[in-house]
Amino acid sequence: MELFFIPEITEETRSVDISGDEFHHLSKVLRIKYGDKIFLTNGKGIIASANISKISKSNCECEIESIKKYPARQIKIIALLPILKHPERFEFALEKLTELGVDEIQPYISVRTNKKNFRFDRASKILISSVKQSFNPFLPELKGTIQFIEFISALNEDDLILYGDTEGLKIFEVNDKFLNSDIKRIIITVGPEGAFTEDEIDLLRQKKAIPIWLGENRLRSETAIISLASQLKMFL
Amino acid sequence: MELFFIPEITEETRSVDISGDEFHHLSKVLRIKYGDKIFLTNGKGIIASANISKISKSNCECEIESIKKYPARQIKIIALLPILKHPERFEFALEKLTELGVDEIQPYISVRTNKKNFRFDRASKILISSVKQSFNPFLPELKGTIQFIEFISALNEDDLILYGDTEGLKIFEVNDKFLNSDIKRIIITVGPEGAFTEDEIDLLRQKKAIPIWLGENRLRSETAIISLASQLKMFL
Repeated sequence: MELFFIPEITEETRSVDISGDEFHHLSKVLRIKYGDKIFLTNGKGIIASANISKISKSNCECEIESIKKYPARQIKIIALLPILKHPERFEFALEKLTELGVDEIQPYISVRTNKKNFRFDRASKILISSVKQSFNPFLPELKGTIQFIEFISALNEDDLILYGDTEGLKIFEVNDKFLNSDIKRIIITVGPEGAFTEDEIDLLRQKKAIPIWLGENRLRSETAIISLASQLKMFL
Repeated sequence: MELFFIPEITEETRSVDISGDEFHHLSKVLRIKYGDKIFLTNGKGIIASANISKISKSNCECEIESIKKYPARQIKIIALLPILKHPERFEFALEKLTELGVDEIQPYISVRTNKKNFRFDRASKILISSVKQSFNPFLPELKGTIQFIEFISALNEDDLILYGDTEGLKIFEVNDKFLNSDIKRIIITVGPEGAFTEDEIDLLRQKKAIPIWLGENRLRSETAIISLASQLKMFL
């Protein structure tokens, strides 16, 4: 079962022409042939099942058999992720957060982040690859880098922040805060490799952010956000 | 705050001589000096705080100031992990499971695992490095490769198996099975990249294993076991 990312598909689409990178992957890597069945997603909730009806050296055509439209989640999950020193750890977090179905990934920099940028194009490709791998019909929106303080300061009353903290509460003790409530977005976040500053923690408290206990050990940033996303998953 | 792995420490130890790899890390990488404070663990529940009292080119001595002994968990968590095709994904899982505090890591092979071995020495070093990084006083026991069927067949009545499954139950719906029960060990497991076979699933059912829902997407094996360990963490 292979899923391809074709952003232009709508519920009305009947046939699709595939070329470029997706065609290369389909034809050269997976050796898909005339008559084979594949799946297509637009990354916005549609997964279509299709048959290869024509194939040439540089492109192929496929006829859509059926379309399934997945409803979007009522509450949006935003992963507010520190840029990490080692790109492979940052990219691992991007891949895992996509598998776990967050709606948006917002990379941040702050006083104690060592690295101040990431390769946006490369990160976008990781998200697409992870969507295909995991059959996730929703491609997370990847944002450009923001200052932590700026992002948190702009949040509203209907945003709930959950952050990883060794002194926090267990998530099942606080799930009534986001189930059956007016919350529209849940922001999950963790400190950078150098940890949050006192000012950052103060700001989180002002915004009524809830510290979530993720275990007694000092987790790496990417482990902490993956754990938090995994725990939250249960309740949404 | 730096933690070093010195397996020979006991509650009676008063001073320690550090040489070899740990000395190299301490002296050349972290540039720790005479009088500096460090932490030491034996990986069996002890974390000692110590001062560097003497330092030379190839070793150093430190005096232990205080020792904290962490109690072992009543229920042991065993991660039964498929050997993965890409070593970096397998090693990532080892690192994360150590941060999350599992007691034992049991790599397995089965009908649909492509790769049949892993580098034990390299894996052991990853566990030690992760214990140090995460201030985890318990080094997980790393086992040699076993056949999945053989491992599961040998389990007893007081072992509980939880496995990741898109058709499963949410973990908070079944936590009464391991809280307030006679369960001594919880085995968490996930299918290999090629998925479990029907026979393997049948065996899991015979052993009353509980399928746990980890989300609607098709998670990679390493994501699934990290998610499962993260969710279980909340209840132990």
